[in-house]
Amino acid sequence: MVNEKIIIIGGGPTGLEAARGIADIGYKAILIEKRERLGGMPDEANYAALTPDMRNAEEAIDEMRAAVIDNPGVELMLNTTITGAEGELGNFKVKGVQNGKTVEIEAGAVILATGFQHFDPGRETQKYGYYEHDDVITIVDAEKMFKAGNFVRPSNGEKPKSVAFIQCVGSRDRQIGNEYCSKVCCGISSKQAIEVKHHCPDAKVFIFYIDMRMYGYWENEIYWPAQEKYKVNYIKGMATEIIKKGDTLIVKGEDTTMRRPMEVPMDLVILAVGMEPSIGTKEMADIFGVTKNKFGFIETIGGALNTVSTNVEGVFAAGACTGPADLEDSISAAGSAVMKSIGAVRKINIHA
Amino acid sequence: MVNEKIIIIGGGPTGLEAARGIADIGYKAILIEKRERLGGMPDEANYAALTPDMRNAEEAIDEMRAAVIDNPGVELMLNTTITGAEGELGNFKVKGVQNGKTVEIEAGAVILATGFQHFDPGRETQKYGYYEHDDVITIVDAEKMFKAGNFVRPSNGEKPKSVAFIQCVGSRDRQIGNEYCSKVCCGISSKQAIEVKHHCPDAKVFIFYIDMRMYGYWENEIYWPAQEKYKVNYIKGMATEIIKKGDTLIVKGEDTTMRRPMEVPMDLVILAVGMEPSIGTKEMADIFGVTKNKFGFIETIGGALNTVSTNVEGVFAAGACTGPADLEDSISAAGSAVMKSIGAVRKINIHA
Repeated sequence: MVNEKIIIIGGGPTGLEAARGIADIGYKAILIEKRERLGGMPDEANYAALTPDMRNAEEAIDEMRAAVIDNPGVELMLNTTITGAEGELGNFKVKGVQNGKTVEIEAGAVILATGFQHFDPGRETQKYGYYEHDDVITIVDAEKMFKAGNFVRPSNGEKPKSVAFIQCVGSRDRQIGNEYCSKVCCGISSKQAIEVKHHCPDAKVFIFYIDMRMYGYWENEIYWPAQEKYKVNYIKGMATEIIKKGDTLIVKGEDTTMRRPMEVPMDLVILAVGMEPSIGTKEMADIFGVTKNKFGFIETIGGALNTVSTNVEGVFAAGACTGPADLEDSISAAGSAVMKSIGAVRKINIHA
Repeated sequence: MVNEKIIIIGGGPTGLEAARGIADIGYKAILIEKRERLGGMPDEANYAALTPDMRNAEEAIDEMRAAVIDNPGVELMLNTTITGAEGELGNFKVKGVQNGKTVEIEAGAVILATGFQHFDPGRETQKYGYYEHDDVITIVDAEKMFKAGNFVRPSNGEKPKSVAFIQCVGSRDRQIGNEYCSKVCCGISSKQAIEVKHHCPDAKVFIFYIDMRMYGYWENEIYWPAQEKYKVNYIKGMATEIIKKGDTLIVKGEDTTMRRPMEVPMDLVILAVGMEPSIGTKEMADIFGVTKNKFGFIETIGGALNTVSTNVEGVFAAGACTGPADLEDSISAAGSAVMKSIGAVRKINIHA
């Protein structure tokens, strides 16, 4: 009889969904999280509202948390860092440190749900002056302000009269090695543009973009209302530099549609930073011997027809640790990883 | 003891993935398909290669088929049309007709995987002359030619020297009620543009688009190679009319970037038709009392955090029957539906 427990590494939306799902099917999940709290990035980065449905993020994550806490099918290990792993499908031995103490965890399969990190716009795109200008912030900073219910210019605490979003910061960019599109930033920016109008109804809001990637229902659910109801101005253009002039920021670049240079004054500039693999994703990939792609995300095998299997039998990966993913992608992939991991340990037992 | 079998309606990629997954977990799937063959749209419409990985579609579908045929956990019902349903979670009674004979099927839960249909470009967008001009085809027609290994102008059987793709045919279009983006057409067109260059290396290939929605890895996996390796010309512009002049088609419209009218001669025009709910999707939604959205797709409840539950407890929906979906979406959602449907029937039994 092989071990039929399934380890899930990462307590964000993907891991929470997987843990609950495993318990619902009558198997045992061991949910391992390095922080002292569950909730992953939406919790850690203080997201205000989910994209696209604008549901209160804290409420949503609380509900997911509640479904695993005190769930007899879920063993919860917080404050736990994984330091090593050995074994194979049906018989993994994972070593870690929990609250300073060494622990060893045994399981039949592993689901990596280690997520992503936000691109640091100060790292290589100093042209935007993120670390120089108080009023140049990111969509992550903006979420925090929305959640606090106080959306203002950091420089003076006043409501901005003009706000510009700049898309593709850290994405679609060969210079920094991130050729991929981060998938969610167009949607999040448009959602935030609507929230800006809720907080500052008189503000003029602009989104400078290359392509608006409002795929599927995001088109009609966010993009159209943003334009028509909230009068957000979408400008196909590249911002190349942000400078400060007195109390105002000047966004310089090129308006691609008008085919002319642009130089527009703004009170606040919000950089739509993309997704990169988290440190935890890279570390876990290495510990479990799982192949990473050239960007450092975990590589799944099987192309479009298998979204969660890795090169290591019995080790699955779901959500943003495999690449840019919206919440729906992550939640669906969690289900697929649950189905495949249970199927995998069960098959070993049948053949044993 | 409630019934723990799970009915899956629709034998395309989503249904095949779900059926195999249910069997792998040790539950019993009843896979119902109205056609005499499994495989769904990729089979029915003769897809040549999957997007984005260009895997041979027939091989891929054969592999998925093989995993359910002769699988002791999967009961297969081909040539079966469902005519009615009653009951509830744990106890559904579904009526149908199989090869002319009435059948009744009992199960604890139902997964709808009834997919989509391609937009008919002759229906309301006659401006493109799909039914008038032999050399105006769709991406679906193009797939058939790629699969047959014979990519030519239908009018004369010769290789085209110039090919234009027109994006958003039947999508992002309020006039016809399809405000949503169909999500996959930008990727499929770019994949096909590469295939055109394989068949006709000397052809000039153009893609007329509004936004190129090459989200996530599609950006680096298809979009960049299409431009750089295969020299596909992407033109931000709206095609408004296609007329015939002698042996040639004239695409009329506006080049948005150049801000001028365009009138370009083409040997072949390929319309990137979008996704609409299939007739089966609408019929099954009505039979099972499941809410449709305004476009006729099945509405899932729970926003971004639940991609498969419907308003009817015990009835789940996965893949393109819920809206525009790429293959990865469909495969992941199948996993989520398997996890949730097994969890649902199991919960009833525990509480019974």
